[in-house]
Amino acid sequence: MNYALILQDKISQNLEVIGIIGLGYVGLPLAVGFAKAGLQVIGFDKSTDKVNKINQGDNYIKDIRDAVLREVVDSIKLTATADFTRIKECDALLICVPTPLDKFRKPEMSYIESACKTIGQHMKAGTFISLESTTYPTTTEELMLPIIEKTSGLKSEVDFWLAYSPERVDPGNVTFHTKNTPKVLGAISKEGLEIGEKIYSKAIDKLHLVSSTKVAEMVKILENTYRLVNISLINELALLSGKMGIDIWEVIEAAKTKPFGFQAFYPGIGIGGHCIPLDPFYLEHIAKKYDFDLSMIHAAGHINMRMPNYMTNKITSALNSHKKSIMGSKILFLGVAYKPNIDDERESPALKIMGEVAKKGGVVTYHDPYIPGIKTENRTFQSVILNKEALNEADYIVITTNHENFDIDFITGNSKLIVDLRNVTKEKSEKIYKL
Amino acid sequence: MNYALILQDKISQNLEVIGIIGLGYVGLPLAVGFAKAGLQVIGFDKSTDKVNKINQGDNYIKDIRDAVLREVVDSIKLTATADFTRIKECDALLICVPTPLDKFRKPEMSYIESACKTIGQHMKAGTFISLESTTYPTTTEELMLPIIEKTSGLKSEVDFWLAYSPERVDPGNVTFHTKNTPKVLGAISKEGLEIGEKIYSKAIDKLHLVSSTKVAEMVKILENTYRLVNISLINELALLSGKMGIDIWEVIEAAKTKPFGFQAFYPGIGIGGHCIPLDPFYLEHIAKKYDFDLSMIHAAGHINMRMPNYMTNKITSALNSHKKSIMGSKILFLGVAYKPNIDDERESPALKIMGEVAKKGGVVTYHDPYIPGIKTENRTFQSVILNKEALNEADYIVITTNHENFDIDFITGNSKLIVDLRNVTKEKSEKIYKL
Repeated sequence: MNYALILQDKISQNLEVIGIIGLGYVGLPLAVGFAKAGLQVIGFDKSTDKVNKINQGDNYIKDIRDAVLREVVDSIKLTATADFTRIKECDALLICVPTPLDKFRKPEMSYIESACKTIGQHMKAGTFISLESTTYPTTTEELMLPIIEKTSGLKSEVDFWLAYSPERVDPGNVTFHTKNTPKVLGAISKEGLEIGEKIYSKAIDKLHLVSSTKVAEMVKILENTYRLVNISLINELALLSGKMGIDIWEVIEAAKTKPFGFQAFYPGIGIGGHCIPLDPFYLEHIAKKYDFDLSMIHAAGHINMRMPNYMTNKITSALNSHKKSIMGSKILFLGVAYKPNIDDERESPALKIMGEVAKKGGVVTYHDPYIPGIKTENRTFQSVILNKEALNEADYIVITTNHENFDIDFITGNSKLIVDLRNVTKEKSEKIYKL
Repeated sequence: MNYALILQDKISQNLEVIGIIGLGYVGLPLAVGFAKAGLQVIGFDKSTDKVNKINQGDNYIKDIRDAVLREVVDSIKLTATADFTRIKECDALLICVPTPLDKFRKPEMSYIESACKTIGQHMKAGTFISLESTTYPTTTEELMLPIIEKTSGLKSEVDFWLAYSPERVDPGNVTFHTKNTPKVLGAISKEGLEIGEKIYSKAIDKLHLVSSTKVAEMVKILENTYRLVNISLINELALLSGKMGIDIWEVIEAAKTKPFGFQAFYPGIGIGGHCIPLDPFYLEHIAKKYDFDLSMIHAAGHINMRMPNYMTNKITSALNSHKKSIMGSKILFLGVAYKPNIDDERESPALKIMGEVAKKGGVVTYHDPYIPGIKTENRTFQSVILNKEALNEADYIVITTNHENFDIDFITGNSKLIVDLRNVTKEKSEKIYKL
C-alpha cells in the first residue's frame, strides 16, 4: 500500500487528523492553531487536570485568548484526552513534550523516549511524526527513529515519516505568536519534508525548509545559545561596571544608538525559563561525543551560575550600609516569574535568591500578580497582597522581575529601602540600590 | 579670563578652528566632515606622505569620495600639516590616533600619551579636547587628564575641557558613514559636554550624550565586545558543525528567519581589523586592576587564536584527500583584506594562514584587488593578476576574503581545487571544500 498517496489525499481534502502530544505552552497554541484552520485535532496529555480543563473550554495558557479556545472546543474541532491509544486515530503527530536537564545538567530525554514508545505502540501506518521540543542535533534520526521503528515494527520513510520542527514560542510576546512566527522544518526524507510542509502550512504562515533534521535541530540551539551567550556577556560586564562605578544601563542605552551591528541585551539576576538556561547544554552534551569543548557555552554557564549568589551579596551589602543584616530583616520580593508579564516561574533565578536569603535568616515574603504560590528548594511561599501595609512592614523591597503592571511610584513611595535588580526605578535616590 | 565664553562665542559664529590629530580612516573623514560644514580644519599627522597627499587633494581613504576631499582642500577649508606647533591655532582638538595591542596583547597607550604630551606643549588656553580612539574605561580621566595638565600647566575644566567620543567608523559600510552615524559623547564636566555638543553637532547628525567619559569609553568596548563574542560563538559552532556533518551556513540562514531576538553572525577564518580583535582586550586589561576576570572575552580570545591554525589544518586535509601535501603545492589565496570590499589587511587572519602554509613548504601567492602588496611575519608578497593562467597554474585556490567583485563562476570554472573558507561558491561540488 502506498501510504504516502493516502496521506497526501487526506491532506488535500483537509481530512487529516492532527495529534498533539503534550498540551503545555507549546502544544496547546499549536493545537488551537490547527483546529482554527479547520482540522480535527486531538490533544494528548498525561495530566487529566489539563485534559478536563481543555474539554470544558477552560484556558490555562496566557498567550491563548479564552474565547478562541472555547470556540474550537465547542465546535468539537479540538478534543483533549489522556487516552494515548487514540494515537491510532491520528494522521500526523506533533510532539511537544518537555526536554529538561537533570540535576547534573545532562539532557533528560525520558519524555521524548517515552513519547516515541507510546507512539510506536499505538500509531497506524502512514503517519507523519514531528518533534517540536528543543534537543541536541541527531536526536530525531539517531534516538527517535530506532525507538519508533522498534516499537511499531514499521519502517521509517516508508510506513511513517519523521521530521523535526522546533517551536519558537516566546511567552508574553504580543507581536509574534505560533501562527505568524516563521517555522523551520527538516525531515529525514524528501517525501517527509513535502508532507510536513503541506500539513504545517495550514496552521503556520511561513515555513523555512532545511535539508535535514540535524540542521533544524542545530538552528534552535543556535538561536538560544546566542541569547544565553549575550545575556551572560552583559551580566559579566554589569558586574565589572558595578565595580568600576559605571552605570551599565546607561552604557546599553548609548550603545543602542549604533544603527548597525549591535543588539541590546540587559543584565539580570540570572537566566530563567525553560529554554535559554537549558538548550545550550544540550549542545554541550552532544559535543562531548565529538571530543569537542564548547568554551563559549561553558563560560556563559559559569557566569550565570554565579549570578544569584552575586545578587544575594548585593542585598547583603545594601542592608549592611544601613547597619542591617539579612538575619531577622523582613524582605519582600517583587516578581518571581523568570521574565516580565508571564506566569511561569520555572528555573527562575528569583527563587534561588529567595531561598538563599531565607537560609541566611531573612523573613522572606513575595508578591507576583501572576504566580499565586511557589516552591523553593526547601520551602513553599504564597504571594502576599501588594498594599501600603505590606510595603511599610518590609525592611527591604527587592525587585526581582519587572512586570509592567507594577506601580513603581506606589512601591517607591511606600518602601523604606529598595534593591532594584531590574532598573525599573529610573530615579536615583539614597534608598534605592541598583545592580 | 572666561575661556568658556570666548570659545562659546567663536562656536556661535562658526569661527572655531578644528584640529584633527591622526589622519587615518577615522581622522580624515572627520576632518572632511567639519570642513564641509564650513569650519576651518587643520589635520595633523606625523606622516609627511599623508600630509602631502591631502594638500594635493589626493585621497587615500576608500570611504571618502575623491571629489569631496578635493573640494575642501581647494577651498582651503582643510589643510594638513606635520607641524604640531600649529596645535596652538586650534580651538578644538579631536584625537584619532591608533590604540593597538602590543605582542603580549596589552594596550599600547604610547600613541595617546604622546598625543597628550604634544597637545600639552602647544595648546592655547580655552581649547576643547576629545579622544576618539577606542580605549579602556578611565583612560580619558585618569591617563590623559594628568598628562595634559602637567605638560601645559593649565587646569582641566577651567582652562581646557576634556571629552571622550568614540568613533564608530565601519569601513566599507555604504549606508552609515561618519556624519549619519549617531555619536556618543561624554565629558569630564557639564560645561565640557555642552561645548562638545555644540562643536560635534556641526559635523554629526545626531549626538547621544552620556554622564561621564568612562561611560562613553565602556559604550565602545561593549559594542565591539558584542561582536567579538558573537563571531567567536559562531566560529566555535562552525567547528563543531563541521565535525557533525552539519552545514553551518544553512543553519544560520534558517535561524535568521526568527523575527525577534536573533542577529546573524557568520563564521570566518578568524577575526581581523583594528577594532574587534583588540578592543575587548583593553577591557580585560583594566578589569585586572579590579580583580575581575572576564571569562566571556577570555573564551572568545581563545577560540579566535585557534582559528587560523584550524584553517591551515582544513587546507591540509582537503589536499590530503587528493593525495597531495602542502609541501611543494602551488597555493593561490584570494583576498587578504580583513573583511570584504576594503583595502585594509591589518590583523587579517589571512596573513597568518598564508604564513603558516608558506612555512610548511607551500608555494604561496595571492590576489587581492585592493591590496597590492603585504608583509607576513617573515616574508613579503605582491598581489598577482587574477587570470586563467594564474588559476590553472595553482594546485589549489583558497578563498580567504569574499570581495564582492570576485567573479566566482570564472574562479570555479578555471580552478583545479578550491577551499572556500567564506561560502562564496554556493554550489556543492567535489572540487570545492567548505568550512
